[in-house]
Amino acid sequence: MSLLTVGSVAFDALETPFGKTDKIIGGAATYITLSASYFTKDNNLVAVVGGDFPQEMIDVLEGHGVNTDGLEVRPDEKTFFWSGKYHNDMNTRDTVEVQLNVMEHFDPQIPAAYQDCEFLMLGNTAPAIQKMVIERMTKRPKLIMLDTMNFWMDIAMDDLKEVLKLVDVITVNDEEARQLSGDYSLVRAAATIRSMGPKTVIIKKGEHGALLFHGDHIFFAPALPLEEVFDPTGAGDTFAGGFIGYLASTGDVSFANMKRGIIYGSAMASFCVEKFGSERLHNLTTQEINQRVAQFVQLSAFEI
Amino acid sequence: MSLLTVGSVAFDALETPFGKTDKIIGGAATYITLSASYFTKDNNLVAVVGGDFPQEMIDVLEGHGVNTDGLEVRPDEKTFFWSGKYHNDMNTRDTVEVQLNVMEHFDPQIPAAYQDCEFLMLGNTAPAIQKMVIERMTKRPKLIMLDTMNFWMDIAMDDLKEVLKLVDVITVNDEEARQLSGDYSLVRAAATIRSMGPKTVIIKKGEHGALLFHGDHIFFAPALPLEEVFDPTGAGDTFAGGFIGYLASTGDVSFANMKRGIIYGSAMASFCVEKFGSERLHNLTTQEINQRVAQFVQLSAFEI
Repeated sequence: MSLLTVGSVAFDALETPFGKTDKIIGGAATYITLSASYFTKDNNLVAVVGGDFPQEMIDVLEGHGVNTDGLEVRPDEKTFFWSGKYHNDMNTRDTVEVQLNVMEHFDPQIPAAYQDCEFLMLGNTAPAIQKMVIERMTKRPKLIMLDTMNFWMDIAMDDLKEVLKLVDVITVNDEEARQLSGDYSLVRAAATIRSMGPKTVIIKKGEHGALLFHGDHIFFAPALPLEEVFDPTGAGDTFAGGFIGYLASTGDVSFANMKRGIIYGSAMASFCVEKFGSERLHNLTTQEINQRVAQFVQLSAFEI
Repeated sequence: MSLLTVGSVAFDALETPFGKTDKIIGGAATYITLSASYFTKDNNLVAVVGGDFPQEMIDVLEGHGVNTDGLEVRPDEKTFFWSGKYHNDMNTRDTVEVQLNVMEHFDPQIPAAYQDCEFLMLGNTAPAIQKMVIERMTKRPKLIMLDTMNFWMDIAMDDLKEVLKLVDVITVNDEEARQLSGDYSLVRAAATIRSMGPKTVIIKKGEHGALLFHGDHIFFAPALPLEEVFDPTGAGDTFAGGFIGYLASTGDVSFANMKRGIIYGSAMASFCVEKFGSERLHNLTTQEINQRVAQFVQLSAFEI
């Protein structure tokens, strides 16, 4: 089935204990669509960039089968820019600089050919824009998934609560789940968030794995223990892209299939952190992905 | 097969966000032997307490089939005392007071009837004492497991490295694994610790589960997501007791069986935190334990 992703396509400048980069390509929708491209062929993007955005990167997305008809290019403006520096533990980072640029007036237009998309992925951006996207779909998608972050809880909580009423799945990290719900226990936090709208809550815990809450069910997915985490940027988006890409490829939104989606998403995220930026997602093979998924099976299998 | 546990039997005074206790019974060996009692009937204790230690608690241990012939009572001295206060997140705590008392001159004597124990559990105590216990066994046990903590890494690292050469399994938490190895990556930390002696490394991550490193294999066990963690005191010891108790009951030290041991240990720990101190471990039923283990199976099961 078809997937529509709406979110940022951006420049990032990163510094990790392993090195630093000048402007490289980043943005939630970049990671999501690249990751999803390994699962679904009907992979549609709505985003906005400036005239400084390189055609080569658009070619990379198209080379992965991403439909960029919805990628607006504003020649006289500049692309969204974020720079960040990771602490030594790689779990925490500081934002060094943000230049909103084209994102300041992001007015997502949904091409007519995208209107029948069954899966909608709202990458992390202003909740009011995420809501606008849903309202601009003439037919409600089969599944709407939303990613957000603490920044929006700080400055736009009311908007966030409005859009949450309209979505099926939310992804947040553990601290964000606590902030959104006001509850330290992740079990109670997930229940509170589910009462806000999304029937399914995914809590990403980075190196500690992920929790999937769906109805009365809980699934705890491991993260692959890695010798080296080179750059965590985009890992959460890559996870989300693998998850929803897998769901879209199967059309199955059952709990059992969501669990598989979590494992595929986790496998994709484990590749993402191996190199700077999105580079590791450019040339993966199905065999590599399947081998990585087999590692997850081994990692968590036991018999009582 | 038979299990020998050597460690502290103590008084604790605890403060958590849910309340505080006066002196209640604690100590690593208390939690370990109580937890192990649900698996092995040949459950032997070596520890030391003062004349202030209540006979009723010795009766509780004996009621669980724990052989207390090796529990030395020094009538004119006082029992080891620890008091601590948990932070709101329940993951961190401050030590408020420590009175070593009888533990200051702990000189563990192994009764002749314990000398043929096949499984030896060295609860968290001074590494020099842990080494002394191993040296006092006339026959090397089939499996020696050691628990330790950052305190000993700070003040007795050389002693710790000496005893590590003699043991098969070590349990530490993630921060301790990093401190012991000098490496942030848990995969590399486990490899470094294995090069120090123990062929099996268990890294406890509290609410994030546990990692088992054994040969080239890694197993990631989930922790049960709980609505309420009432008191985490003793959870690590309860985990260790369930693990080694299960191994002793089966006599099987294969990787597959260690994985089962990790799950049984995790199930026991999930009970421990539901009440203050060791109370929840006093009256469990086999049915309750099996139901809890079934929750772990559900929590981590997926099919690709």
